[in-house]
Amino acid sequence: MVQVGIIGGTGALGKGLAARLALGGARVVLGSRDAERGAGVAADLCAELGGQVSIDGGSNADAAVSPIVILAVPYDGIEANVAAIADHVGEAIVVSTVNPLAFDRRGPYPVGVEEGSVAEWLATQLPAARVVVAFNTVASTVLADREQPVAEDVPVLGDDEAAVAEVIDLVDTVEGARGVAAGALRLARVIEGLTPVLISVNKRYRTHAGIAFSRLDTSGT
Amino acid sequence: MVQVGIIGGTGALGKGLAARLALGGARVVLGSRDAERGAGVAADLCAELGGQVSIDGGSNADAAVSPIVILAVPYDGIEANVAAIADHVGEAIVVSTVNPLAFDRRGPYPVGVEEGSVAEWLATQLPAARVVVAFNTVASTVLADREQPVAEDVPVLGDDEAAVAEVIDLVDTVEGARGVAAGALRLARVIEGLTPVLISVNKRYRTHAGIAFSRLDTSGT
Repeated sequence: MVQVGIIGGTGALGKGLAARLALGGARVVLGSRDAERGAGVAADLCAELGGQVSIDGGSNADAAVSPIVILAVPYDGIEANVAAIADHVGEAIVVSTVNPLAFDRRGPYPVGVEEGSVAEWLATQLPAARVVVAFNTVASTVLADREQPVAEDVPVLGDDEAAVAEVIDLVDTVEGARGVAAGALRLARVIEGLTPVLISVNKRYRTHAGIAFSRLDTSGT
Repeated sequence: MVQVGIIGGTGALGKGLAARLALGGARVVLGSRDAERGAGVAADLCAELGGQVSIDGGSNADAAVSPIVILAVPYDGIEANVAAIADHVGEAIVVSTVNPLAFDRRGPYPVGVEEGSVAEWLATQLPAARVVVAFNTVASTVLADREQPVAEDVPVLGDDEAAVAEVIDLVDTVEGARGVAAGALRLARVIEGLTPVLISVNKRYRTHAGIAFSRLDTSGT
């Protein structure tokens, strides 16, 4: 039973991931800037999910002391959230879900990151950690609707093959989701840019679309 | 019966699109830098497809005099190909399939384009044309295997809604393909970056993956 820490666990994405991963069998430590709030949201989720799950709550630093740490925070203000965990993650697998977006009257658009992507910037901030990209294209509204399986592919990118494989296994514990090894960390900018495209599709067709790969059978690998 | 000109029609992508679109009912004008070669490849394709199709061949300038012009050329050397059609396309819909890639020993990766994307650069070069992005993620090997339907979604992006709708209708004539309105031209950089991700997936899982959107029903629109 793998322990997964979630940084920003009281946000919509963090909470959704906490629930789905706990239902998949993970031991979740839900972190928040406010440890008391983290503990409260964790207790609420446990009650809501019927006590069959393992979700503890605390500070982001508490969550960061896990073999897999998921960064589920917005792009705005990411520096402070990363600084708060930098001394705690060590050589953990750090999963970045973060998309660098800006908004104007025409909607969201991807903004450039000097290092190429948030994930590559993160690797410079947490040099011992094994940075992996995942869950960027999964909508928190989809995670929250637990009547439905997630039913989409989750591109997983990184330069450490073993870390990518571990994250794929974790993704696969989420009902309906399929982790797909989709390349090196230098391609993260592409995945981090997909959310504005998905939002455009959602607006046009009134849905909550996800990404999938066609003609892809991952079962033999 | 819409007329579609294909710039670079003798290349693998151009030839595959010519065949699939002709089979879907379009009147195709297959262009080449060498008009004689364009005519030859068009005649070969007609013979191969059994004469039920309409494919004429000629120069790229001949192909450019069509209401829909598909730019199926590589990123390297695109300037010369665009210069050759600039005086001919007028207000046509110009469909860019072009992905700005570079390769090193680790494989392909997206390169930055000053204007944001090839499509946005193209809009500066052909100011009267209505630039639309499509077919970027469709592999020429998939188009070439005519025993199989294409079976994937084709993101279509652009700032001219009517042009986007026309290109979606064209995509939908290709058996198995589904055109999806996926946002404004300023998001083209994301779609233009997907090919290295798909190549990574293909290498890892030995397939020819395409893109699809999950939870998306376009039938009512």
